[in-house]
Amino acid sequence: MTMKLTRRDLLRRAAVTGGYGATYMLMQGLGIMAAPAAYAGPPDLPAGLGGGRHVAVLGAGVAGLVAAHELEKAGFRVTLLEARQRLGGRTWTIRDGDRIEHLGHESQVARLSPGIGFNAGPARIPSHHEALLSYIRALKVPLEVEVNSSRSAWHLSPTVNGGQPVRQRQLVNDTRGWLSELLGKATKRGALDGELTAEDKERLLAFLRAYGDLDADGAFKGTERSGYLRTPGAADQTGQAVAPLPLRDLFSPDTLPSLLFEDNILMQATMFQPTGGMDRITEALGASLRPGTIRRGAVVTSIRRAGDGVAITWRDNGTGKEQRLLVDQAIVTLPLPILARTDNDFPAPVKAAIAAATYDHANKVAFEAPRFWEAEQIYGGISFTGGENSLIWYPSDHFNAPTGLLVGAYNVGANAAAFQALPLAEQVARTRAAVARVHPGSAPHLQRGLAINWRLIPFNEGPWLHWEVDGNDPAAYALLNQPIGPIHLAGAHLSQLPSWQEGAVLSAQRAVTAIAHRTAAGGADIKTSLKG
Amino acid sequence: MTMKLTRRDLLRRAAVTGGYGATYMLMQGLGIMAAPAAYAGPPDLPAGLGGGRHVAVLGAGVAGLVAAHELEKAGFRVTLLEARQRLGGRTWTIRDGDRIEHLGHESQVARLSPGIGFNAGPARIPSHHEALLSYIRALKVPLEVEVNSSRSAWHLSPTVNGGQPVRQRQLVNDTRGWLSELLGKATKRGALDGELTAEDKERLLAFLRAYGDLDADGAFKGTERSGYLRTPGAADQTGQAVAPLPLRDLFSPDTLPSLLFEDNILMQATMFQPTGGMDRITEALGASLRPGTIRRGAVVTSIRRAGDGVAITWRDNGTGKEQRLLVDQAIVTLPLPILARTDNDFPAPVKAAIAAATYDHANKVAFEAPRFWEAEQIYGGISFTGGENSLIWYPSDHFNAPTGLLVGAYNVGANAAAFQALPLAEQVARTRAAVARVHPGSAPHLQRGLAINWRLIPFNEGPWLHWEVDGNDPAAYALLNQPIGPIHLAGAHLSQLPSWQEGAVLSAQRAVTAIAHRTAAGGADIKTSLKG
Repeated sequence: MTMKLTRRDLLRRAAVTGGYGATYMLMQGLGIMAAPAAYAGPPDLPAGLGGGRHVAVLGAGVAGLVAAHELEKAGFRVTLLEARQRLGGRTWTIRDGDRIEHLGHESQVARLSPGIGFNAGPARIPSHHEALLSYIRALKVPLEVEVNSSRSAWHLSPTVNGGQPVRQRQLVNDTRGWLSELLGKATKRGALDGELTAEDKERLLAFLRAYGDLDADGAFKGTERSGYLRTPGAADQTGQAVAPLPLRDLFSPDTLPSLLFEDNILMQATMFQPTGGMDRITEALGASLRPGTIRRGAVVTSIRRAGDGVAITWRDNGTGKEQRLLVDQAIVTLPLPILARTDNDFPAPVKAAIAAATYDHANKVAFEAPRFWEAEQIYGGISFTGGENSLIWYPSDHFNAPTGLLVGAYNVGANAAAFQALPLAEQVARTRAAVARVHPGSAPHLQRGLAINWRLIPFNEGPWLHWEVDGNDPAAYALLNQPIGPIHLAGAHLSQLPSWQEGAVLSAQRAVTAIAHRTAAGGADIKTSLKG
Repeated sequence: MTMKLTRRDLLRRAAVTGGYGATYMLMQGLGIMAAPAAYAGPPDLPAGLGGGRHVAVLGAGVAGLVAAHELEKAGFRVTLLEARQRLGGRTWTIRDGDRIEHLGHESQVARLSPGIGFNAGPARIPSHHEALLSYIRALKVPLEVEVNSSRSAWHLSPTVNGGQPVRQRQLVNDTRGWLSELLGKATKRGALDGELTAEDKERLLAFLRAYGDLDADGAFKGTERSGYLRTPGAADQTGQAVAPLPLRDLFSPDTLPSLLFEDNILMQATMFQPTGGMDRITEALGASLRPGTIRRGAVVTSIRRAGDGVAITWRDNGTGKEQRLLVDQAIVTLPLPILARTDNDFPAPVKAAIAAATYDHANKVAFEAPRFWEAEQIYGGISFTGGENSLIWYPSDHFNAPTGLLVGAYNVGANAAAFQALPLAEQVARTRAAVARVHPGSAPHLQRGLAINWRLIPFNEGPWLHWEVDGNDPAAYALLNQPIGPIHLAGAHLSQLPSWQEGAVLSAQRAVTAIAHRTAAGGADIKTSLKG
């Protein structure tokens, strides 16, 4: 359960992480911390490795920021080119006054109360995303709990409870009750005598009575776990459980989101959100870089080999002026649809792999609204509604405040492809109606909706891609993960976690390691300069 | 799903709750809020009902504070007598410098860092404890999430995994996998043909494959839900699930705490804690009372009828002076062991019921320590360890801070009765050793432990009592819930929720209603005064 590090390892790693990170590593080294499988720490590079060699990092999302951060720590000179004025890429917290542009839709301007932010991209962090969490710790970004699953949230599907919403607590616990009753019956009838000894059977039957809250005969008659019809109170007000849902309402694929979401390894409690918005992470990473490293409004127009190095051409979005940058190596985190349209001299198979990559669709629609859900005892968590909106996601912060940020739709896949084709106003209207099916009367309170269609967001043109589906080719993934001489592609799309910030961090760290290997192997040390 | 109120109801209730409460009630009345079964709001009394009549409330725990709050709103004059200098009763947040006294143990003085508090009594609030939450809302006590269950926490029992700790995620998901496999097998073998049609069986089998993460043949071979042996990373670092626990390790009563705790209706997410300590609630209630209402250090020595009213005698703990208070009615929230020793003229059956009430035992042992558990990816939640410490409860606040408040033991019942008989130092030492069995190497970091034995805390002498067990008599509960003329007993012990603050609130509200009824029925309006 524990991982031992040598003192030398400790000191090296403490030097890298610094501050509380050092304490953390020290504790781990002292053997008082059980290291879970996996994260080996950031690239473990000597501080002087870079020796002032110049690396361009294209794109200031999580991958680009982490790459720049690690490269500067290792003594590289970094230029980080970002097309937008803001950092973060898909890590995007929308606040009052922010303008939202889509390709093919009209502009929106966010109207939100002070303190209210909309995490339009990533909005939660699993407690095992250790690479991302290590930066959060080192940069002292405050974390709070993101309530990813709440038993009070609703489940809505046509086949359950006559199409009326039921609390997830009832779905979870009635399902467990019925399953336990059925398995108990089958066990008593000898159906599992091949698998179970007589003693096993007794143990299993006793277990099932507790697990399913069955009666002494092994029958499921309902359970307080599923909620109260009448809550326990003072004096003689005893609690009375709700009646169980009928067996045939359950065991349906419709119920799976509400039953299994909390046990998806990426969704399991404890989940986090940075206090104040997901972009606190990317802002902190940005602030950790040297003054002048980041060039905002810098749209990359060409990436070509130049001698042993790389020539990057970029256009200043403000002045329109083209500039050229010669560097020793480059890390390119641009989304593949953007990269496919950027002039380059990559080998033909690489160009083909980039051009063929097909991203998923994903949309979110959010409202600021009075917290009517809290009056239903819902504080965070997600109601799974099916339909085109898919779910309703409640805020985990500022409980009992007058208003909160409600995500009324978050859809992906074919559902999302159809949805993004609707006018934005229609997307918002349909989401409002979908929320009101679960929360009757709420529609008038769902004003100033904001819709985000990730396939249509400039400089992204997609939320993520899945290499095993959508006509994508896993061989392309393997190819793009190989360096193109001094050019290294990186980003969540080149990790096993394409829809998670952790994937971006790990891919960036891998690219930094590749840069270090090439540097140590003695890549040419060409003079670089900024030319305007 | 919605509850309609008349506009008159709304206005009355808005007047009672005020502020955001009014908005809340208004939204409920407008039908945009689905009212869950149960809480009807605080006693709905005219503001002038009390007409200055004087009520004594004995004990400033949650019940006494709520009673005083509601009585003052209804125009009663209230004197709230509290034996301690602090408010809150069992609602007790221990901070640096606080002295902890036990009957029969030596004094302890807490040594805790700034910002670190130990909720020695209640430490969590379910999201359906609507009565308590309504005061929290009205008094603007900030809430944060209490992570009651985390899949990253450990399960430890001799029968599982060879006695080595396993993550709760593995216990939960391996159990689900094996159960699904067994039920699928039995279903295919026709054991449930009496219950299920052929179509039902097909649906159930398809459901079980998803529910248990079974392979196409319905076999459970392990699941990523149970955790990673290798986490997914960049490029070709694919995720690899842990191997499943053997079937025979599961289906044991040992596993139930880790499997079922999160679905106990009182423990289901979302759970809360007040930011900064549970006593923020009782402090806010205290601050809501009129100046002079609360008498601290006032030990009640006698409760007797006097004409149509009540004569309370109390001793000032500072000066030692006895004082006498004549009031119209009284609410007595003293714990029954204390009340049994307080002079009174209650009817003999009432005296007997009070004297016979037997409280449970409960102990907590806490440490401030470096957050070694966070290095194990544990952020809040509870490890169920069995043994005399029972569990390890991790802090839900200040993630990534240098230290945190770790509850290393929380035991009840016979286990706790034996534990409290140990010297405090031994309680702390045994807890330290128990924590180190789950967190090897942590023992030296568990310093300055604090032990709380609720049966030995002066002015409490018990955590709660359960009327159905421990030789208690449910008839006594019914009797003590009846007024003794102008005297009304109240407290969590006279509710269906004896170990929850909600029970105290609801019992107090019931007592206030009884006071109001007696007042409206024209109880004598005797002159009252403070005599010293």
